[in-house]
Amino acid sequence: MPLLLLTNDDGYQAAGIQALAHIAATFAEVYVVAPDGPRSGAAAAITCTQPVSYSPLPHSGKDNLHFFSCSGTPVDCVKLALEQIVPRRPDLLLSGINHGDNASVSVHYSGTMGAVYEGCMKGIPSIGLSLFLQRGQRYEDHPVSDDTLAAIAALCQRVLQHGLPQDICLNVNLPVAHKFRGWQVCRQARGQWSAEWVSATHPYGQRAFWLTGTFTDLEPDANDTDFSALRSGYCSVVPVTVDTTAHSALKEIQNLI
Amino acid sequence: MPLLLLTNDDGYQAAGIQALAHIAATFAEVYVVAPDGPRSGAAAAITCTQPVSYSPLPHSGKDNLHFFSCSGTPVDCVKLALEQIVPRRPDLLLSGINHGDNASVSVHYSGTMGAVYEGCMKGIPSIGLSLFLQRGQRYEDHPVSDDTLAAIAALCQRVLQHGLPQDICLNVNLPVAHKFRGWQVCRQARGQWSAEWVSATHPYGQRAFWLTGTFTDLEPDANDTDFSALRSGYCSVVPVTVDTTAHSALKEIQNLI
Repeated sequence: MPLLLLTNDDGYQAAGIQALAHIAATFAEVYVVAPDGPRSGAAAAITCTQPVSYSPLPHSGKDNLHFFSCSGTPVDCVKLALEQIVPRRPDLLLSGINHGDNASVSVHYSGTMGAVYEGCMKGIPSIGLSLFLQRGQRYEDHPVSDDTLAAIAALCQRVLQHGLPQDICLNVNLPVAHKFRGWQVCRQARGQWSAEWVSATHPYGQRAFWLTGTFTDLEPDANDTDFSALRSGYCSVVPVTVDTTAHSALKEIQNLI
Repeated sequence: MPLLLLTNDDGYQAAGIQALAHIAATFAEVYVVAPDGPRSGAAAAITCTQPVSYSPLPHSGKDNLHFFSCSGTPVDCVKLALEQIVPRRPDLLLSGINHGDNASVSVHYSGTMGAVYEGCMKGIPSIGLSLFLQRGQRYEDHPVSDDTLAAIAALCQRVLQHGLPQDICLNVNLPVAHKFRGWQVCRQARGQWSAEWVSATHPYGQRAFWLTGTFTDLEPDANDTDFSALRSGYCSVVPVTVDTTAHSALKEIQNLI
């Protein structure tokens, strides 16, 4: 049986990781090592200034499904799992299913994808999965459909069989849909967040700000981006590289400098 | 006078950002909006679950140099500065000088570079600057030399004049050196962190773990990476893209799926 490591940024109690864990346990030995509470927006943050701990959670009822909670970030969960928890090197890392999308530039803030980068940098085939909920929609009211979960399981099995290219992981986003329409391999859309702060006043008068914002797809007419796939009801699959270098710009920057 | 926004992940008190702010103030109007304390390893994390606040700090003594502290992450600092603090759109964003390097894969954990991504995604030419200290070395004992600061100022002026390509920012790492040897435009080295946890026992017996680790350059013989530049005493300049897509792998993933 393959060994799968699962994590997320919504915490181990979240419906998305519970659904993913139970579908994964149909074909694999599964270790869930996930934050003890919400870590949305954690990106690839690591905990530098305090120690991190973990605890086993009560028996899941399945002998091949093990849950642990961790006090750290999603990346901490992966690092700690690999050195301290899993019995051997995992064959596959899954992160999610996130309650909210991580398409376009939101990938940069994503704790879900932070964990995926970490798995990839450790040489483990790694996949992030996120559900494109509209603001105010809850996962519990729009759960990922059974046939989409089955398609995710099939995708995992293909990746287990063939691996992924070196230093490349997958950023998968799922539309809210009753039926699975198919995968669309695509690129990250250009996008922008704006109007990001809402003023809040503390009862004692101090002003503070809640982070919110409006997202704009800067390529609304493209047909090869994650956003265009999602708009058409497909599941987007962006191959993501952990090499941040803009190779095509090396010459131009050389000339500038 | 150009308008510069400065931030970092070590906090506004850090020697690195103070040095950068004072050299920037020789040619620009400077707004420093930086965390109120250390945020090392914050990556591009954003604060989702609580409000963020900021405060002006005492007058710097220079009319064109303004300091603000912020309760959030480096990315929060940039987002809040742009919407609430700076009088107009900055011409350039600088993040650092970080007390520690952000070369190779460490770029992914870097709060310094998280802020730079944010500036870049907002369309502002953005540069991250980090000093390659060995473990245990302090910035205060190995400050960036005056001629390196002058070279940074000259680099800023070239970027102010010519801009940077769309969606591309710069990850600059500086060796500890008495003299500036030159810039080397290069790519991100492949690298890996391992042996990352040191066990710690709470006085009451609970076990926890400190994040530490050993970095290995996986391309020690390369001569075109950030690590090779730093090893040779040069300042590395990696053009970094906020497009995470592995364009070269789109076909291969299409076939896999």
